[in-house]
Parts: sequence; C-alpha cells; structure tokens
Amino acid sequence: MIEKIAHIGIAVKDIDKHLKLYRDILGMKIGERVKVPDQGVEVVFLETGDTRIELLQPLNEDANINKFLEKRGEGQHHICLEVDDIEAELKNLEENGIQLIDKKPRKGACGEMVAFLHPKSTGGVLIELEQKKK
Amino acid sequence: MIEKIAHIGIAVKDIDKHLKLYRDILGMKIGERVKVPDQGVEVVFLETGDTRIELLQPLNEDANINKFLEKRGEGQHHICLEVDDIEAELKNLEENGIQLIDKKPRKGACGEMVAFLHPKSTGGVLIELEQKKK
Repeated sequence: MIEKIAHIGIAVKDIDKHLKLYRDILGMKIGERVKVPDQGVEVVFLETGDTRIELLQPLNEDANINKFLEKRGEGQHHICLEVDDIEAELKNLEENGIQLIDKKPRKGACGEMVAFLHPKSTGGVLIELEQKKK
Repeated sequence: MIEKIAHIGIAVKDIDKHLKLYRDILGMKIGERVKVPDQGVEVVFLETGDTRIELLQPLNEDANINKFLEKRGEGQHHICLEVDDIEAELKNLEENGIQLIDKKPRKGACGEMVAFLHPKSTGGVLIELEQKKK
C-alpha cells in the first residue's frame, strides 16, 4: 500500500545555488544534507508538509546523474512513494508487468530501504519506493 | 508561506492507460477528474497522503501540453505548491528576481487561484502556486 509521496527528487548542478529559491525566497526549512557515494550524489531535503523536496547534485564526474543532467538539464528527476511493505510491493509490481531497476531493496540516502522502478513501464516517471519507518 | 506540496503534475498521452499503474496496481484512490479547456487539458487526481498526483492529457491538438509531450515525452510536468497568500507570494518572488509566467493568479482546474513560475528561473522545474482554500 502507498502511504504517501515521501519526496520529489530534483536534479541540480549545484545545490547551494538552488537553496536561494527554496530556502531563502520560499522559506522552506532545510532537513538532512548527506553524501550518498553509492549513488554518486549529494542530497539535501527541504521540509514542507508531508512530502519533501530532495535536491540532488552529482558527487563526481562519474555519477549516473550526470547523464540525466546532460540529456535533460536540471529538473524533476524522480518521485518517491512511501510504502508499508516494500518487498510485497515490488512483488506486486513485477507480477503486474512493471519493470524494476532494483529487484531487491537497497539502502537509501537516510538508511531506509529503497528500490527504483524503470521509467519505461511507468510512463516516463522514475519512481522510487521507500520502506516506511517501523 | 508554503503550506505543502499540493500535487505533482505528470503529462501523459492517455490518462486511462496510466490508471492501470496508479489505481489498479498501486491502489491509489481516484479523486476529481475534470476537463480544463482554458489550459487544453483533461486532468485526474490520485489521492495519497497530503500530496496528490495529477495526470494531465491534452484535450485537443492545439493544447500547449502537446509541445511538452513532443519534446520531452511523457513524464513529470510540474510541481504545485500550496501557499497561504498567492498574491503576496508572487510579489515576493518577483521582487527576488524570479520570472513569472502568470503575474496575476488565474482560476485553476478545481476553481482555486493558481499561477505558474517560469522554469528558467527555478532550475528547470515548472512550479505552480495554488491558493490554500480559506
């Protein structure tokens, strides 16, 4: 079951440049800011209501997200849905013909288990599932 | 002040095709489904937590959203932020150098007042502001 939209991921070249809009002008509060070497990104969360905004910038030249930035430019990168049982949800999706990037959940930016679905079978939207904290 | 993310807009060619994923497989509830001739779109809202997903499909060949679909393909189209005072927020944004598409709020899909910011000054993200219901 989908509990809520956990966050919206926005790919940027330089997080600090974009904090001007979200933090300074729009007044959102800064949450965690962490480096995720596994995924080649540094991320910062902006708090607002139930659903957060996650700005992602590449950690280095080899980061996967550089391909996205080169092809599409800065902008919306993914949507993260919080689920009550990530293993059951992945099984459900796969049985219904949705292509998975991660067949098994792996550790996300803040320690929770996550898995990505392939945008080919979700109408061009990169969807991340995140296990709800228990 | 930003109250929350009201919804995430996803541009699709055919809403019904995509309800298979969001409604049938992921189990989200369907909210309003309305035609917005002014914006050349038909939209349906999917309910989950505080923030909804809005699927948008073109109403006809002249619809603006066709340009987006031709250029980028189906995918994330905009983010809508709910604000407590849309007029004050637009003034604040403009004074801080953010380019506005709508200098004055206009009526949105469900009757509330909305305004779009230009993605040129928001790092490639089309941001919609929506007046909180009073």
